[in-house]
Amino acid sequence: MKVITGIDQTKKIVSLIKEKKLTIALVPTMGYLHQGHLSLMREAKKKADLLFISIFVNPAQFGPSEDFEKYPRDFNRDRRLAEQEGVSYIFHPDAQEMYGGDFKTFVQVEELDSIMCGQRRPGHFRGVCTVVLKLFNIIKPDIAVFGQKDYQQLAILKKMSKDLNLDVKISAIETVRENDGLAVSSRNKYLDPRQRENAPVLYKSLKAAEEALRKGFGIQRAEKEACRLLEANDFVKGIDYLDIRDARTLGPVLDKKNKSDILIAGAIQIGDTRLIDNIIYRRS
Amino acid sequence: MKVITGIDQTKKIVSLIKEKKLTIALVPTMGYLHQGHLSLMREAKKKADLLFISIFVNPAQFGPSEDFEKYPRDFNRDRRLAEQEGVSYIFHPDAQEMYGGDFKTFVQVEELDSIMCGQRRPGHFRGVCTVVLKLFNIIKPDIAVFGQKDYQQLAILKKMSKDLNLDVKISAIETVRENDGLAVSSRNKYLDPRQRENAPVLYKSLKAAEEALRKGFGIQRAEKEACRLLEANDFVKGIDYLDIRDARTLGPVLDKKNKSDILIAGAIQIGDTRLIDNIIYRRS
Repeated sequence: MKVITGIDQTKKIVSLIKEKKLTIALVPTMGYLHQGHLSLMREAKKKADLLFISIFVNPAQFGPSEDFEKYPRDFNRDRRLAEQEGVSYIFHPDAQEMYGGDFKTFVQVEELDSIMCGQRRPGHFRGVCTVVLKLFNIIKPDIAVFGQKDYQQLAILKKMSKDLNLDVKISAIETVRENDGLAVSSRNKYLDPRQRENAPVLYKSLKAAEEALRKGFGIQRAEKEACRLLEANDFVKGIDYLDIRDARTLGPVLDKKNKSDILIAGAIQIGDTRLIDNIIYRRS
Repeated sequence: MKVITGIDQTKKIVSLIKEKKLTIALVPTMGYLHQGHLSLMREAKKKADLLFISIFVNPAQFGPSEDFEKYPRDFNRDRRLAEQEGVSYIFHPDAQEMYGGDFKTFVQVEELDSIMCGQRRPGHFRGVCTVVLKLFNIIKPDIAVFGQKDYQQLAILKKMSKDLNLDVKISAIETVRENDGLAVSSRNKYLDPRQRENAPVLYKSLKAAEEALRKGFGIQRAEKEACRLLEANDFVKGIDYLDIRDARTLGPVLDKKNKSDILIAGAIQIGDTRLIDNIIYRRS
């Protein structure tokens, strides 16, 4: 396994790989690898000859009052874990390498980026799209694998890829959960023991909404069921959103005859920590 | 020469070309080809094995009150001219092919896109960047050639290419002019005979500013010299801008010890027609 920090060096390596007609899978990460990342890597590894991961805490996707500085980092541990998973290359640039030289160019997927997480985090998805497009241009993966936990991100990146005529296939894998249902996330580390104990309420509330839909109740009733659970938990400081949407368009769920999948997604505050999660309810 | 209208078909052709290790030069155009385009094509042809041009009147770069509908089009004539110049492929998609499927993704080079032409044409350069990035992703040129007449566009596309880590080399060629100095442009066709006769005043005003700089006068004085000429011409209905800037950064011209090139650029209205032009004053 090789760690590369420079863009030009990476491009040279990629160009040699392409000459040998080998395929590349990419798992973009912000590091502090957890089971979710590892399962992305395992899946990605099956789908191409060589596995790249990127480890880059992307300043462009954090708001001014967000946790960029304190976002957890442990490169040595990440490197060991990546090696164990059979990663071929870690692309690990610094912010100067990615955004130096008076950076001014941004990519935006309009509308999709201003709902749900985008409402509370203006500019977040613009930062995600910009860095992911840069990574795609540098590493030229045949396939890139993302987690379904960041469902809105996934939908936005798929849209970006389609609109901009990229060649990369964007693939998703299911959210990895702890035994009690909490979605695995680097930010879970911020939770103290009591908060951690209560954090699965988010997943439970999504399941409650799903159950309501399954029973034939409408969207509003299902959202209400979920919110009731969240509001009853003293550790939930706030509900950013609890949304039920068409899983493909992220628009409103249309009539009942339309059998497309339904996204049930939420974001809450527990203490100072923001947690997100979602599940897909398949109607067919 | 082949005309291709589909994106997937173009990607297949490009992929075969790349397999043969042939290089591609691209000249993106909105059609209605004139001497300026032809000189871009001649230059581009020297720089790669195969020459692609695109002909696409890009709706995303026109404002709601601009001339998208009446922008001149003559595909049969364009095709003949391209064939004469040895073009290998014309990529000629329709708007549905380029922006169908609920298009939402846009690329923006901030700051550079809101000065000069960007002030009067909000969203214009966003539309240019988006379509050019799409063309690059579809055609994967090794080199793309643009005219210096659209100097701001050139600067923005170079910045986009650098910021997004694109592999394409962006090359510029000098503005082609009529005998009386008027920069060749598809929009010159809108001018009636008297307007056409007066249109070279824009170029003359830029030269007057250059002359003032050469004599050692400051920026403000040079701008004033140019504006004086424009204001004295009854056919000039308005001056959008007359700007003297650092040719590299498009920022203000810094102190006199800095020997970087100076851009002298203007945009005026003659009748209902908006004309732009620029010259580079080399201090060294």
